[in-house]
Amino acid sequence: MKQPIKITITGAAGHIGYALVFRVASGEMFGSDQPLILRLLEVPSALSALNGVGMELEDGAFPLLYDVVLTDDPAIGFRETNYAILVGAKPRTKGMERKDLILDNAGIFAQQGRAINEHAAEDVRVLVVGNPANTNALIASANAPDIPITRFSAMTRLDHNRALGQLAKKTNTLVSHIQRMTVWGNHSLTQYPDIRHCRIQGKPALDWVTRDWAIDHFIPKIQRRGAAVIEARGLSSAASASAAIVDHMRDWVLGTPPKDWVSMAVHADGSYGIREGLFFSYPVICREGDYAIVQDLELDAFSKARLAASEQELQEERAMVERFLRP
Amino acid sequence: MKQPIKITITGAAGHIGYALVFRVASGEMFGSDQPLILRLLEVPSALSALNGVGMELEDGAFPLLYDVVLTDDPAIGFRETNYAILVGAKPRTKGMERKDLILDNAGIFAQQGRAINEHAAEDVRVLVVGNPANTNALIASANAPDIPITRFSAMTRLDHNRALGQLAKKTNTLVSHIQRMTVWGNHSLTQYPDIRHCRIQGKPALDWVTRDWAIDHFIPKIQRRGAAVIEARGLSSAASASAAIVDHMRDWVLGTPPKDWVSMAVHADGSYGIREGLFFSYPVICREGDYAIVQDLELDAFSKARLAASEQELQEERAMVERFLRP
Repeated sequence: MKQPIKITITGAAGHIGYALVFRVASGEMFGSDQPLILRLLEVPSALSALNGVGMELEDGAFPLLYDVVLTDDPAIGFRETNYAILVGAKPRTKGMERKDLILDNAGIFAQQGRAINEHAAEDVRVLVVGNPANTNALIASANAPDIPITRFSAMTRLDHNRALGQLAKKTNTLVSHIQRMTVWGNHSLTQYPDIRHCRIQGKPALDWVTRDWAIDHFIPKIQRRGAAVIEARGLSSAASASAAIVDHMRDWVLGTPPKDWVSMAVHADGSYGIREGLFFSYPVICREGDYAIVQDLELDAFSKARLAASEQELQEERAMVERFLRP
Repeated sequence: MKQPIKITITGAAGHIGYALVFRVASGEMFGSDQPLILRLLEVPSALSALNGVGMELEDGAFPLLYDVVLTDDPAIGFRETNYAILVGAKPRTKGMERKDLILDNAGIFAQQGRAINEHAAEDVRVLVVGNPANTNALIASANAPDIPITRFSAMTRLDHNRALGQLAKKTNTLVSHIQRMTVWGNHSLTQYPDIRHCRIQGKPALDWVTRDWAIDHFIPKIQRRGAAVIEARGLSSAASASAAIVDHMRDWVLGTPPKDWVSMAVHADGSYGIREGLFFSYPVICREGDYAIVQDLELDAFSKARLAASEQELQEERAMVERFLRP
């Protein structure tokens, strides 16, 4: 049997956390032969609920789960962790300005970046889910100067999966028939789900659907999907977000499928002309815990304008949090 | 690729249902090579929330999920289904007598039994989770006279898993080190979690813990675990219940591990002197969708008294619902 790995999940008693931890404990993220230790981190006010999550993890009798640590102390939560999944974030409340939300979360992710830098294992990999995810990943990485920036990512996999789901539905195919979906940019309304490089059963997606459908129906639907789920459920997406987290981490660590890629928000290294120093969602291919941005995809004028709009938004977010970018 | 199977889940928009459907969709119940069609059944008032669950299933981009049917019509929900998982039940509300709860649910499960009898596939297997689970399974089976009674079961796997978790914790072992746990009787406060036949790392459990610990601490803790989780979380067990459902169905269909058994509430056939015509939790070994009650375990006086108390309670429940037992 392999040695157990340590996985830290923040916000573990929240809706997404509750949908996530049991799937991780059951082995869905890293496989049924990989024992694990869960370190669940919460804010002090959620410790009672977190205790309940811990009880239910005991009650799940998961063979791979060697230990569970429940804590509100980042030094304990991130100690020697191999994978840090940062789900917890301050939600936007009524009457709150977007800028206030960004600044409140900037403080949280700066602190977590420092704690990861100090306490995590040398090989730690970090996924930021809490919003604004791209900018929070930038802040966390800036506060963890000893950790290579390529070990940080932010999640656009939920958008990617939503795009697969809607394209499969429209073309009456299965998601497994679709390859090379891309979501570019910020995990926000400026994201750009791009089907121009997709293949469905080996044929270009634009042989199956029109460009007009993509622009008039598909793109806005993916961008606004979160609000539509809240409308229907009365609660935000939790199970689908946790499914995307499982997919993101599994593919990052165990590798993307052959002839396919996935979308991850990673440090912009100049690829596709995006300013260095932002976290930007790109098509990536992963092998053994490393990602490589897919290069040389052709972008038409429409695509270029979309990427530029998302880059512009990310630059504005960056400007707001500039003072959190020095550890 | 195998042909897709049809799985019906009732109460799919409730807490347990929401924790369950995504694990089923991801292939955890029947394996990563088994495509499936989900039929999600809800009461009319929950159809908007169910629609949200359906949207999130699309957004999960699950490769095995070939179709999702959302309905409040049992004729559609159970049509040609291979596996019916009956989670939805009327919860006990404040000031409600236990008898009223039992009678309200009796009507629901009688109707579902008739619908399953009429619409399900010939090979259908039914798991009842909604409480009172044992008696609801009895009612559903009585209203499905064309389906062998051995295709019905009620869930005591959550109790079984809780017992594994607590015994592992006490003995500082892993749940995978423990074999032959048994939960006898009704899924209620009269259940009897029995460690007398358990082996831990190949040695009798009673070499690891005392009989006094089992009686004074272990048994009451398992019996009252549900209330303790509610106390901590402010919500009832959902993720651990869904984990137990996955385990129950997987083991029933794909088989129990070698040299081990699991607990399932099944039709009492006279084994261990329990009156025929009740659903009673026994240790069972499963192969290819059939179960066999483990025979000839020795019961001491304490155990016999516990089984008798649970049988007595089940007889009382049966007496209350007698009029629902004729289709």
